[in-house]
Amino acid sequence: MPDLTLYTFDWVPPPPRGFVRDLRVRWALEEASLPYRVAGVPMDARGPEHLAHQPFGQVPWLTDGDTSVFESGAILLHLGGLSAKLMSPDPRGRSDTTEWVIAALNSVEMASLPWTMSRFMKHPTDTAAWKFVDDFLKLRLKHLEPVLANREWLAGSFSVADILMSDVLRVVDGFEGLADSPACRAYVKRATGRPSFAKAHADQMAHFAAADEKRAS
Amino acid sequence: MPDLTLYTFDWVPPPPRGFVRDLRVRWALEEASLPYRVAGVPMDARGPEHLAHQPFGQVPWLTDGDTSVFESGAILLHLGGLSAKLMSPDPRGRSDTTEWVIAALNSVEMASLPWTMSRFMKHPTDTAAWKFVDDFLKLRLKHLEPVLANREWLAGSFSVADILMSDVLRVVDGFEGLADSPACRAYVKRATGRPSFAKAHADQMAHFAAADEKRAS
Repeated sequence: MPDLTLYTFDWVPPPPRGFVRDLRVRWALEEASLPYRVAGVPMDARGPEHLAHQPFGQVPWLTDGDTSVFESGAILLHLGGLSAKLMSPDPRGRSDTTEWVIAALNSVEMASLPWTMSRFMKHPTDTAAWKFVDDFLKLRLKHLEPVLANREWLAGSFSVADILMSDVLRVVDGFEGLADSPACRAYVKRATGRPSFAKAHADQMAHFAAADEKRAS
Repeated sequence: MPDLTLYTFDWVPPPPRGFVRDLRVRWALEEASLPYRVAGVPMDARGPEHLAHQPFGQVPWLTDGDTSVFESGAILLHLGGLSAKLMSPDPRGRSDTTEWVIAALNSVEMASLPWTMSRFMKHPTDTAAWKFVDDFLKLRLKHLEPVLANREWLAGSFSVADILMSDVLRVVDGFEGLADSPACRAYVKRATGRPSFAKAHADQMAHFAAADEKRAS
């Protein structure tokens, strides 16, 4: 039996709530019905202990007994090795899941994060920089759209690749970036319609709400 | 014995030569002394056959017998499973290598690619968009610098994580982005000083030079 603890910040301000990347890990853990604890680490003071587990000073990280893993993508691949509900254990399933995990992070989020951050920060859109960012995302969505129009999930059955890809696309959708990508939008709805997502999202919101109460008292 | 074929474009214009991502795969194959073939696919006409292997219309992809893998990160993890020279086969080594593979792609390249593309396209630097891009990369380098000051390679011994991380940082270095990150710069020099990198780089340059001759004749 794995001995799993998920580390996330003890508190964050309201805007990122519902989007902190521990959500991806909670979602996978709920999907696989794996038992786990959640531990909060100080957001305001990220010391050597934090950096020893997460060298970039971010969250989440996961411990599984003596093993500590950072990067949401790496954590999800680790959990995929613990449950066939997260990654098909045959070589083809592992290979397909891994390539789509990386595609979600390095092909799609690589394009979507600059786009969503520019939208969030209300950067002007009459610039060469914005045109590059917007064209980059549109190019990725143009290629992803026929993929998602023709399959329910990326790697045969629902997997950690779908958790990552739909979480990446969900943020784009929140800024109306999927208006011309109906299959991508339907996929986000399909993935985030799972009870495991609702539980993970509610748990993250409750975690930070509880921290508000502690700060106020 | 694996049956490996690396697919890359048959030709690209001069600017990206030396940086096309098949280089990462060539480097790993040379490092592990794995036998492989290289196949060129049309850059100008990316048809259904191309998209069946690489849905985003990019290169590289790799076939290993009946298995086809895209995304340079996923290909390198696949090759890591074939050679201890690319990934330590014990669980700790596999876990550490995987997390640093993802960190190279999703924490560092996520910040470096917008930065290097902005530099390449000479976007103005007196904008909020540039400040965000520049601050994002500097934050990542600030955290990576002490990591690389204290270890020779990311995951114990040289691995595919170092191929990815040094290839990502090499592009930043080419635009003088590592001036304040001496340990990152020394790491790039250490990694790209390996004979396997020189061979991979020379082979990619020769591949595209041969295509120039074919086009001219």
